[in-house]
Amino acid sequence: MSTDQNKFQAIISHCKEYGFVFPSSEIYDGLSAVYDYGQYGAELKKNIKDYWWKSMTQLHENIVGIDAAIFMHPTTWKASGHVDSFSDPMIDNKDSNKRYRVDHLIEGYAETLDPEKSKALLDQMEQLLKENDLAGLKTLIETNNIKCAVSGTANWTDIRNFNLMFSTQLGSVTEEANEIYLRPETAQGIFVNFLNVQKTGRMKIPFGIAQIGKAFRNEIVARQFIFRMREFEQMEMQFFIRPGSQKEWYEKWKEERMQWHLSLGTDPAKYQFKDHVKLAHYADAAVDIEYEFPFGFKEVEGIHSRTDFDLKQHEKYSRKKLQYFDTEINQNYVPYVIETSIGLDRMFLLTVCNAYEEQDLSTPEKQDSRVVMRFPAKLAPIKLAIFPLTKRDGLPELARELMDECKQAFHCFYEEKDAIGRRYRRQDAIGTPFCVTIDHQTKEDGTVTIRHRDSMEQERIPMSAVKALVLSKII
Amino acid sequence: MSTDQNKFQAIISHCKEYGFVFPSSEIYDGLSAVYDYGQYGAELKKNIKDYWWKSMTQLHENIVGIDAAIFMHPTTWKASGHVDSFSDPMIDNKDSNKRYRVDHLIEGYAETLDPEKSKALLDQMEQLLKENDLAGLKTLIETNNIKCAVSGTANWTDIRNFNLMFSTQLGSVTEEANEIYLRPETAQGIFVNFLNVQKTGRMKIPFGIAQIGKAFRNEIVARQFIFRMREFEQMEMQFFIRPGSQKEWYEKWKEERMQWHLSLGTDPAKYQFKDHVKLAHYADAAVDIEYEFPFGFKEVEGIHSRTDFDLKQHEKYSRKKLQYFDTEINQNYVPYVIETSIGLDRMFLLTVCNAYEEQDLSTPEKQDSRVVMRFPAKLAPIKLAIFPLTKRDGLPELARELMDECKQAFHCFYEEKDAIGRRYRRQDAIGTPFCVTIDHQTKEDGTVTIRHRDSMEQERIPMSAVKALVLSKII
Repeated sequence: MSTDQNKFQAIISHCKEYGFVFPSSEIYDGLSAVYDYGQYGAELKKNIKDYWWKSMTQLHENIVGIDAAIFMHPTTWKASGHVDSFSDPMIDNKDSNKRYRVDHLIEGYAETLDPEKSKALLDQMEQLLKENDLAGLKTLIETNNIKCAVSGTANWTDIRNFNLMFSTQLGSVTEEANEIYLRPETAQGIFVNFLNVQKTGRMKIPFGIAQIGKAFRNEIVARQFIFRMREFEQMEMQFFIRPGSQKEWYEKWKEERMQWHLSLGTDPAKYQFKDHVKLAHYADAAVDIEYEFPFGFKEVEGIHSRTDFDLKQHEKYSRKKLQYFDTEINQNYVPYVIETSIGLDRMFLLTVCNAYEEQDLSTPEKQDSRVVMRFPAKLAPIKLAIFPLTKRDGLPELARELMDECKQAFHCFYEEKDAIGRRYRRQDAIGTPFCVTIDHQTKEDGTVTIRHRDSMEQERIPMSAVKALVLSKII
Repeated sequence: MSTDQNKFQAIISHCKEYGFVFPSSEIYDGLSAVYDYGQYGAELKKNIKDYWWKSMTQLHENIVGIDAAIFMHPTTWKASGHVDSFSDPMIDNKDSNKRYRVDHLIEGYAETLDPEKSKALLDQMEQLLKENDLAGLKTLIETNNIKCAVSGTANWTDIRNFNLMFSTQLGSVTEEANEIYLRPETAQGIFVNFLNVQKTGRMKIPFGIAQIGKAFRNEIVARQFIFRMREFEQMEMQFFIRPGSQKEWYEKWKEERMQWHLSLGTDPAKYQFKDHVKLAHYADAAVDIEYEFPFGFKEVEGIHSRTDFDLKQHEKYSRKKLQYFDTEINQNYVPYVIETSIGLDRMFLLTVCNAYEEQDLSTPEKQDSRVVMRFPAKLAPIKLAIFPLTKRDGLPELARELMDECKQAFHCFYEEKDAIGRRYRRQDAIGTPFCVTIDHQTKEDGTVTIRHRDSMEQERIPMSAVKALVLSKII
């Protein structure tokens, strides 16, 4: 059994080798913390999106989806607080010109200390970060004589906050030129559309607005493959409720979102709730749903009780009322909000890590092994592979008949090359739950061999029963 | 009957009123040429995407999809030619500070001339634009004494080319800081991944790579609603072929893509092919599929024979071989490419314009009318609306039974308020193909009234037949 770090490296290699994830612009040596999804990755990602979208919108009568633009009016980010405080404190070494995130610099130094001193230093740092005391942080670096790993000197600039938003210029006509941002989160696209959706959709509180879309953060330290990227995708839902009912709805969504994760068949022991110790300024409760990745328990999804902070801020900055008239209690109010926010790329990584398995199939006679991706059938990129045993004797024609019957309903893969065993292994590696082989007996009695990915068991069933069997497992 | 311009205005209003399209960040007075998709728009857009994706990938064994990032290595855009030539010539008036696209400025002046002089001027302009002769264009403006509409003067700056790409800074660590671009097209994401996909997917030529994603262009003049936006979405497929076979594949894809459009039931008279008169530097053939919008025939999709231009450029700039070994002819080559590129937002606008109908239903006794969106059933945001006739007598319970039976399979809408007639009209306005009413007779014999959107005909069918009927129309 490989160690977990080795396992993670093996997963990353597997993702590239089998067309799940490629480094972005790889022929130009890539772009830091940006990735492309390959032919099987794109299908898996789409299937995750569709599963989330259906479960949130189609299966909830009081939740609708929108698709807001990445570009938003810049005042949006003043109102949300991102212009003023969506930043990390940074420091440059004057000799090496290397820039560091202050917390990473101090944490790196703390690792060289004995546990007691390390804890004391980190506690001091946490306190200063909380107070946004940049001068105090600099003094902390100086008194500890923390040095740059490149230059070896302690010749530091002052600390300044570096905003994580990407900016660009919109328009070229002089009077219109305007600095805008790539959205750092999708939530604000929902908040600014709250009243449009509520009124045109005649929505009654409680109701939700869901969205899937890209967001962008200029992260300084990119790490852990697609876990933390500069360009990533979120699946968010903002649920608008009557003030005072937030505790109840927070608990309900906590429960419902965990059930969603478990509905994919993952071992519950791999999941845990982690309450936020420090709450964001807008929140009155917050919890992470964490999954045990090969590099430890990490956040996949957050459930946040955001109060009426966002809508009130947008009221203030837009000078437009963002209120709801509640006919049941005959009262106008700014709704409270419970947010469920899941990282699509993290959910993808979770799905891949959870599915990946190296199996030793050796017998006393023969060494053998396989890598199998145990994707839930509904998420698998390919649902059914169809193999004629040989290229002759009318077997490809029969296989084509089955393809034609099934391909409208779900994604099928056809292959007639190489030995059946090799074809099975290739499908295992991309996680295809079912393989069907057409052989000479098929011509006689109309039956085929269906092979199950996880158990590797094979059974003989009528060819006419294949489509229904696969459909029963994926809907 | 309204004129077409009026009709277009009515469509835009309808899109906002019924939750299809909202101006972006509308509470902050919007952002020029950026739009958000509302609750029904997001569903319609998703259905168009899914229909394209399925028809390109699932139904073609030799086409796979990918999902490349918006951020790409900046050299990509040097190689593709976008850094040097993806620009419009612009001129500023020194008195008003107003900036103009040179062609728009001259065209505006030409409209004030008699036809003969106008044509002569525009011919001169076309020639100078073709030669990228900026000094000559300035002389043309001066000799014609063309003035700024704001200042009324002819006090012009020199003309310069303004790049249409949005740029931003990646990274904050000094040595890493890098100007990158938001991709102005999705095609290059496919080209740089050509070899990754070909090798890991063991693809054999001819094969295609499909992709759906956002692209960004800093258009100077935004117009016609969502027809020309600064942030838009493309659905593209690059089909890699043996050099010399491009004519044949170009014709095949021209035909196949037109069939795709017609498969949605649109009147063929609304579509036409339009060959490009001037070919782009990379193309040896190009045609637009045009649709007759209320503002005239305009491009929805382009089919381009791109030769080996892109892959060869990326070979040159990356110094990596982007070749394919063709076992059939025992030869290495850089593949030729046929591109099919459709604007998702334009396809959305087409679908909306094509579906929109104002109907006069007046009788001698009573004035009446309705607006109906005649969406193809497979694209409609909601497939089935379920109405209990009253809120009493167990009718809602029966309606709920039907909801529970259908909602896993497709998007349903439940409503028990208001008169049935009003409920029908609201569903007509968002294009729901089927409405079912549960009434007292349902309790007796298990039948319901199903009402067809387009014909407004109602028929009595068993409640147990509803799901299958809807499914038969949407798959």
